[in-house]
Amino acid sequence: MILKAHLIDISTGRRSAILNEKDAEKIGVAPHDRVKVRCKSKVSTAIVDTSSKLVAPGQVGLCKELQEDLQVKEGDEVEVIPTPLPQSTIYIRKKMFGGKLTPEEIDAIVKDVVEYNLSDLEISAFLLSELFHGMDMSEIESLTKSMVKYGEIIDFGRPVYDKHSIGGVPGNKVSLLIVPIVAAAGLLIPKTSSKAITSPSGTADTMSVLANVELTAEELKEVALKVGGCIAWGGTLNLAPADDIFIRVEHPLRIDPEPQLIASIMAKKLATSVKHLVIDIPTGKGAKVETMEHARELAAKFIELGNRLGINVKCGITYGGQPVGHAVGPALEAREALEALMGGGPMSLVEKSTALAGLLLEMGGVVAKGFGKEKAMEILRSGKALQKMREIIEAQGGDPNVKPEDIPVGDRKHVVTAPCDGYITQVDNKTIVDIARAAGAPADKGAGVLLHAKVGYKVKKGDVLMEIYAERSTKLQDAVSILSQRNPIVVEGMLLQTLPEY
Amino acid sequence: MILKAHLIDISTGRRSAILNEKDAEKIGVAPHDRVKVRCKSKVSTAIVDTSSKLVAPGQVGLCKELQEDLQVKEGDEVEVIPTPLPQSTIYIRKKMFGGKLTPEEIDAIVKDVVEYNLSDLEISAFLLSELFHGMDMSEIESLTKSMVKYGEIIDFGRPVYDKHSIGGVPGNKVSLLIVPIVAAAGLLIPKTSSKAITSPSGTADTMSVLANVELTAEELKEVALKVGGCIAWGGTLNLAPADDIFIRVEHPLRIDPEPQLIASIMAKKLATSVKHLVIDIPTGKGAKVETMEHARELAAKFIELGNRLGINVKCGITYGGQPVGHAVGPALEAREALEALMGGGPMSLVEKSTALAGLLLEMGGVVAKGFGKEKAMEILRSGKALQKMREIIEAQGGDPNVKPEDIPVGDRKHVVTAPCDGYITQVDNKTIVDIARAAGAPADKGAGVLLHAKVGYKVKKGDVLMEIYAERSTKLQDAVSILSQRNPIVVEGMLLQTLPEY
Repeated sequence: MILKAHLIDISTGRRSAILNEKDAEKIGVAPHDRVKVRCKSKVSTAIVDTSSKLVAPGQVGLCKELQEDLQVKEGDEVEVIPTPLPQSTIYIRKKMFGGKLTPEEIDAIVKDVVEYNLSDLEISAFLLSELFHGMDMSEIESLTKSMVKYGEIIDFGRPVYDKHSIGGVPGNKVSLLIVPIVAAAGLLIPKTSSKAITSPSGTADTMSVLANVELTAEELKEVALKVGGCIAWGGTLNLAPADDIFIRVEHPLRIDPEPQLIASIMAKKLATSVKHLVIDIPTGKGAKVETMEHARELAAKFIELGNRLGINVKCGITYGGQPVGHAVGPALEAREALEALMGGGPMSLVEKSTALAGLLLEMGGVVAKGFGKEKAMEILRSGKALQKMREIIEAQGGDPNVKPEDIPVGDRKHVVTAPCDGYITQVDNKTIVDIARAAGAPADKGAGVLLHAKVGYKVKKGDVLMEIYAERSTKLQDAVSILSQRNPIVVEGMLLQTLPEY
Repeated sequence: MILKAHLIDISTGRRSAILNEKDAEKIGVAPHDRVKVRCKSKVSTAIVDTSSKLVAPGQVGLCKELQEDLQVKEGDEVEVIPTPLPQSTIYIRKKMFGGKLTPEEIDAIVKDVVEYNLSDLEISAFLLSELFHGMDMSEIESLTKSMVKYGEIIDFGRPVYDKHSIGGVPGNKVSLLIVPIVAAAGLLIPKTSSKAITSPSGTADTMSVLANVELTAEELKEVALKVGGCIAWGGTLNLAPADDIFIRVEHPLRIDPEPQLIASIMAKKLATSVKHLVIDIPTGKGAKVETMEHARELAAKFIELGNRLGINVKCGITYGGQPVGHAVGPALEAREALEALMGGGPMSLVEKSTALAGLLLEMGGVVAKGFGKEKAMEILRSGKALQKMREIIEAQGGDPNVKPEDIPVGDRKHVVTAPCDGYITQVDNKTIVDIARAAGAPADKGAGVLLHAKVGYKVKKGDVLMEIYAERSTKLQDAVSILSQRNPIVVEGMLLQTLPEY
């Protein structure tokens, strides 16, 4: 059917063609169905929506994504042709019923994800099937390779070292220490990382307080080769772009299927030509991984997949039962990282960062096995890591002389105090995350939580347990309202609940 | 945030509020997030989409569904407030990880489905979780009751009899015989049925060839009480409306989780006050249920659920390994049903219809146990069923004197002949369905397939095996192209494939 293009300025994250209801009926398509849309020599596949008035009969509404694909102008002639389901939907169905997918089948799915041939519903069915049925190592390997195949690859011409955390523990700003330590030791560590999806601050969010993290592939390469390291957002680099689409669908469902988690991390590493990789697996109550058994299983998978992909992987299982350090939220975390680089900062942050950095130093032959942590600590204490961090900040367009106190944090504050004397027995990750996010993090960079007490601390009634920071009072209220239902910090002697409730 | 309403004529099947990207960032929401939208005294929950131009900063685009909810005019002041995830998403998550849901939890999910508080992604996660983890009988009972609770209930003031097929076998027009047979025996059988979702013709599609099937609840009651039976589309009656939303999400994923299937059927029956119900479970290769064991399990579930709901259920397991009768597609099936009522028609159709109708006659005490089929056959052969069907057609606004040959079928035709002499060993349901749908059924009422041979028939080379009917030549081509890859009808002696392919 030949229709006139009507440009519609909605960005749906997929290719949407909006047909008038009557035209849709005429060519026998319904919402969620697929059509080919052709304009001159350009063809694209789109998902159908219908409208009775926005798009008149004879017109086809084209969303932003399609306009770009087809380079179409208002009123251009566009041909719309119903198309059968892509073959990849059959493979998704196979996985849905517990089948094992071949490399070719996985490749077809990933290709159709990247080319927007699959609807969000179909992608979610694939992800949920992974969650329910799992994937074996061959499937995960194929998934990883296909995600890399349909994206950019950055080659630095030198062995690349990297560190990655599987996430799930708040306040985990260790990359801001590890990258400069490792780079100061002469190893190349061009770290790309994510913005927060469900946490109050991803590494890229925290780094964005100090410097520009939105680098092009060329800039990333230039910065990394010049100063030995960088901390950039992966989102602008088109590395394994299928992953971004998978994440966009995982996010509203708050799922993170393990095969996808593994493939996602390893695909980004393969795409940045990483050869030596340390993976941090925070483990403990409220973290993504709750038991040591699970952590060990997951580590074994990363190591095996690394072998298959030619990446030397070491995993560090770390304590993830409470936040790392004291600060949660972009600005508060950036402050804390800087303080640690300057010789201060909380012990838990320094210990964890040097332990993981030490593994990389050993893998890079900087020191013999068993001496990495010591060497990392030495680089940190000597001020070389701070110096390197300032070089990285400068190379990424930030102020190299930034001091912790220069970093603005939210000016609305709520202080939580101990209701009684006692020892802290629990700092609940999930509640801290929810409070920090309710306070506005990561979008409001100055929002977050500053812990004054962690597990094992002895406190007296009235001592400050934590401060909540926000940039807007409505957000502060939202965050404070969570406190009425959930205790983020438990003092051993306190009443957890009274019954009947009053 | 207070914004100006901008009415957008898209119907998305959910409540979409389109915010300008900047406003969305300001209030901290992203696509798929939920907001409350308030206009004067009306409040509704909507799912966020974003736009950079269609909706200007300071505006909020409201889709059709929201416009109706809020009774809003262009430019009206509307307040948009971010809202937390509804509690039901936590229950969906519980099911996602294999938990058992309480009646209250299921009720919360169904309520939020009906009130459009859940996104398609969340609903699909619930349905896929049912598919993967199943549901026990208490959960199915709760699901059924909640689906009824949030919809209309029609009370006829008399005991209601009904027949339902779980579907999955093409050509199953038995309701067009059963309803008039049962009604002619004096039992009340106000049948509501679905339009085709994945089949070439639902009972409502077939009936729509003969009469109006889009009745209001009042009309349905009037027709049924006047002539004793009707065959209407359930879609206009708002019976268990949650079910329609579940189906809308199941459709693009082509899934039909068993707990949902059972609850869906029983909810519609409960909502039409059915007391005595015969369920047809077509069983065989290519049907929804492939083995007798599975059919018996499913029957036991329907019977147990019936007990819990106060519905007297009998299940008939029927042969579903090939199409019922010869005709597949709305007009062809309507013709065939009418022929059968007039004393002709294929034996398989007549046998199956009278067997199931007989069960209802026994349940209604019209005859003693064991004599139902005989009685049903007598009513059919006597012409009373035909007479009753003509009354039903007339009461539903159709032509009571319609003859089979009056019913128009598609004028494009392709004939498939036997490639060799032999016995028919297989008529493949799925291929027949795909061919009939490709030919245009059910939207093109005249499209479909007419089988001239079924399993066991002896044919000679060149004999007609089937005819494909279409209203448009492009559709006919689509249907014929399926034949090049798949054999809908297998003659024992024929080559199924040659290797290497040529």
